[in-house]
Amino acid sequence: MLPDVPDFDIYAIDHLPENLIVADQRLIITWDDGKISHYPFVWLREYSPDAGTFNDITREQNIAVTDLPDELNISSTEIGADGSVIVNWQPENLDSRYHPGWLRAHCPSNPKPNFELPKRTPWTATRTATSQAFPPTFSGALINTDKEFSEWLGALHSSGVAVITDLPIAPEALEKVVDRIGPIRTSNFGRIFDVELKAETNSNAYTSQPLRAHTDLATREYQPGLQFFFCMENSVSGGETILTDGLAVAEKIRTDHPDEYAFLTEQPIPFVNTDRDSEYRYEVPILETDHHGDITTVRFTYWLRAPMTGDLATLDSLYSALRLFHHYADHEDYQLRFPLKPGDLIGVDNRRVLHGRTGFSPDVGHRWLRGCYMEREELESRLRVLDRQRRFRSA
Amino acid sequence: MLPDVPDFDIYAIDHLPENLIVADQRLIITWDDGKISHYPFVWLREYSPDAGTFNDITREQNIAVTDLPDELNISSTEIGADGSVIVNWQPENLDSRYHPGWLRAHCPSNPKPNFELPKRTPWTATRTATSQAFPPTFSGALINTDKEFSEWLGALHSSGVAVITDLPIAPEALEKVVDRIGPIRTSNFGRIFDVELKAETNSNAYTSQPLRAHTDLATREYQPGLQFFFCMENSVSGGETILTDGLAVAEKIRTDHPDEYAFLTEQPIPFVNTDRDSEYRYEVPILETDHHGDITTVRFTYWLRAPMTGDLATLDSLYSALRLFHHYADHEDYQLRFPLKPGDLIGVDNRRVLHGRTGFSPDVGHRWLRGCYMEREELESRLRVLDRQRRFRSA
Repeated sequence: MLPDVPDFDIYAIDHLPENLIVADQRLIITWDDGKISHYPFVWLREYSPDAGTFNDITREQNIAVTDLPDELNISSTEIGADGSVIVNWQPENLDSRYHPGWLRAHCPSNPKPNFELPKRTPWTATRTATSQAFPPTFSGALINTDKEFSEWLGALHSSGVAVITDLPIAPEALEKVVDRIGPIRTSNFGRIFDVELKAETNSNAYTSQPLRAHTDLATREYQPGLQFFFCMENSVSGGETILTDGLAVAEKIRTDHPDEYAFLTEQPIPFVNTDRDSEYRYEVPILETDHHGDITTVRFTYWLRAPMTGDLATLDSLYSALRLFHHYADHEDYQLRFPLKPGDLIGVDNRRVLHGRTGFSPDVGHRWLRGCYMEREELESRLRVLDRQRRFRSA
Repeated sequence: MLPDVPDFDIYAIDHLPENLIVADQRLIITWDDGKISHYPFVWLREYSPDAGTFNDITREQNIAVTDLPDELNISSTEIGADGSVIVNWQPENLDSRYHPGWLRAHCPSNPKPNFELPKRTPWTATRTATSQAFPPTFSGALINTDKEFSEWLGALHSSGVAVITDLPIAPEALEKVVDRIGPIRTSNFGRIFDVELKAETNSNAYTSQPLRAHTDLATREYQPGLQFFFCMENSVSGGETILTDGLAVAEKIRTDHPDEYAFLTEQPIPFVNTDRDSEYRYEVPILETDHHGDITTVRFTYWLRAPMTGDLATLDSLYSALRLFHHYADHEDYQLRFPLKPGDLIGVDNRRVLHGRTGFSPDVGHRWLRGCYMEREELESRLRVLDRQRRFRSA
């Protein structure tokens, strides 16, 4: 039987080890396609799948690096009949058996993950005009299948927006879908919130006024990664949904307006959301980037900016940058605009895609959306698990 | 009557405006203590507390910067008998009345916030040994008062750990306290989780094995900011609680080991938490810093590191840095160690203070903690609101 792996995944064996060399504190494997992998001793030792190193129920490490001997050595190596790699560790005299598929997938210099998340692809209104299917739209009748559900989630990940139509028009319809992804993130607006006209309200969302393209909850250090809206009723005149890809806006500004781009990515901006029973504050650039320079968060709850402090030149730069960002975010070339129908569920990447609505008359008809937040990582986790299950089925 | 302010706060009027000048697209106020404040037109205009600009129920802005006229002007200014500042905006012909306390507090070049969060103060075992009251400890009998509750929260913010003793030993005791702060963050371990021995488990936390000082959920982009544990039972031999201030460890490494500090703050490290129904992954330096270079997150769920990739020199640096971090985090000079008693509730800043436990015998006695997560910003929001309420009462 092939050795256990230190996770819950399945690893194809596309290549077998042909030769093992121990040298320079590492195990060097030559594979049957000529590729060579180098595994440092401590690296290899800490991922030994034996029950002392990995808890075989949780598949979590039982040890820390400091629990291992200072001087590790391999006294013997062997390639098993099934291609497994067997080494004897000294001074522990521990025999460790490694799965060749796992070793190959985790080659430190050339890893091959079983699954990679789809790429994020920016979009504009004009760049999607030729496609009938934007935003990506899926049928509520089919969403119960893992295949359709995966495709919806994949589209939501790569486009930052994806729709399901024709779900049963019932208050619990939202949770029935999103519970299949992961835990909902509760905020001061509750776990599920009803977006409709409210007299005694604590958010502009609960009025009939128009809302320009924006993200939600800019005052949270981790601005909610995903937002879901389910349409229960929409019989008002107006109240159309607006969507703008903040990633496309940011890339446009990066290319054409480098000064404003530098300001937006570097200058911390104060945000505040104050209510009778809460007061959230956070100071952060409007565009956050990772160590590759890729944009990770667009933060644009424009009505929650706190009064800016700083010298007058900084304040001037702020207003120039804001006007520029609004210019593109509210421009028809960048904006999708469509009415939600009862039974529609829309998922939006709230750290990337801005949403808004046109104003509506509060006197005729009723507009009622149910909404909730969730982290991006729940979507990513679900995509990985669905793909893992697919691989198990096809193995 | 004094003008409204664009938030829910109260502003003391310690100084009155003495003179107003309009020049260079700004209003210049000379105060009665000789201080001078400059308010750019667009800044001043966008915080006009009139009902068109600010929704007087939500106290949120109704407008975006792009809704304002391109060319703003002030045609007249006046200081009211109550010290309010009245300006007439053109071309809108809008009279705006500003509260002098609000204006002074928000002076762009010299703001004076009503409230500032307490400073974070690193601690070690030796630096706290002379103090009887560390970790800061509060009585369950008094925690119902806002004053005691504020002090507990303030201590939790500044020390990263604070205890309440002698709460009623009941499963709901945890929620009764933490619900007063803000919403709990649900994870794949649930909203509230029971830390006790479990046979079919998905986390090392639910075993009897020792756990070195660590943070929880390193695989989440936003590693939970706060963790609360409430002790229901603790009759085992062993199972003592371990606490280490990761901030103190990081500062020690910054001072004495600059190469390792650079690695820990700059090199993204992959983390993975894989289960039958979830697979969370994130890649990030172990120490995250803000634009001031201050440490915002210590990430050290050591058993959730994914197999590292990269060149062999990077892998060598990883293991050196990990050994160094463990060395301090597990060192008696840095570590507090004490048994939790039934009725104790401990709050820990999970992005800063590492926790752990000594192993215990699974056969004698029972150890049962109830736990949950929450974001740091809920604590900060609650501290602000409690202070605001205190100021309203004393006004």
